[in-house]
Amino acid sequence: MSRLFVVATPIGNLEDVSPRALRVLAEVAAIAAEDTRVTSRLLSRHAIRKPLLSYRAPVERRGLPRVMAALEEGDVALVSDAGTPTISDPGQMLVASAWAAGHTVVPVHGPSSIMAALSISGYGGPGFTFFGYLPRKPGELRRLL
Amino acid sequence: MSRLFVVATPIGNLEDVSPRALRVLAEVAAIAAEDTRVTSRLLSRHAIRKPLLSYRAPVERRGLPRVMAALEEGDVALVSDAGTPTISDPGQMLVASAWAAGHTVVPVHGPSSIMAALSISGYGGPGFTFFGYLPRKPGELRRLL
Repeated sequence: MSRLFVVATPIGNLEDVSPRALRVLAEVAAIAAEDTRVTSRLLSRHAIRKPLLSYRAPVERRGLPRVMAALEEGDVALVSDAGTPTISDPGQMLVASAWAAGHTVVPVHGPSSIMAALSISGYGGPGFTFFGYLPRKPGELRRLL
Repeated sequence: MSRLFVVATPIGNLEDVSPRALRVLAEVAAIAAEDTRVTSRLLSRHAIRKPLLSYRAPVERRGLPRVMAALEEGDVALVSDAGTPTISDPGQMLVASAWAAGHTVVPVHGPSSIMAALSISGYGGPGFTFFGYLPRKPGELRRLL
């Protein structure tokens, strides 16, 4: 059984990556990436060379078999273009499949636009609700709000 | 006008701290900390020496004047014991006061237990609701759920 690491990556500021995130990216057998070109830039900046597998929304189902096959061979890291994968980003289907296949899924802390925005908002409540991408149609948006 | 940096810190794994977080902690004039002993350990590990101001919940109001006074003198970082300050952690009153006094509040990405847990949950929804600390009394908990 392998490990699937869900690795948060920088949102704009390349200094926002922890030693652990870089170590995990350097140690896995392969990296599943929302956009392999975006991830290539991050990796080359840190002199990391790894096989990259495309894992995009809204076609998660298409990328899934290759990433699951890679997990049978060794540990895999999942990254999105920026921030924490699976939250308004592809990955939830892969995470569920990995658990179901008996692998271990490990979070690697890092940037989250939700937490960054909340932490400087001065909002005083104990909890909050995140709606994800809001509807673009004015009627649907009004109903939700 | 100064800057208040809201800096997320490691939750158990000391490798989970970004170069930017360490740079900010090394550059500010003072650090407001939920528990100065916990923060001292993090700082001494990275050879950072700074004046520490106690800023605890549930007595945020008590620590507020000293931290606001420090902001008048220079940049301040806010940290909690672990994770992202202000979310189930002290800091929201300070953030609101800093904005109100004309300072800038800057988030510094890092560990978040909420994002870590969500990202490996395999939960497929577009959004989520975070309730903060749940009530301890069985009756209140049942009503909330």
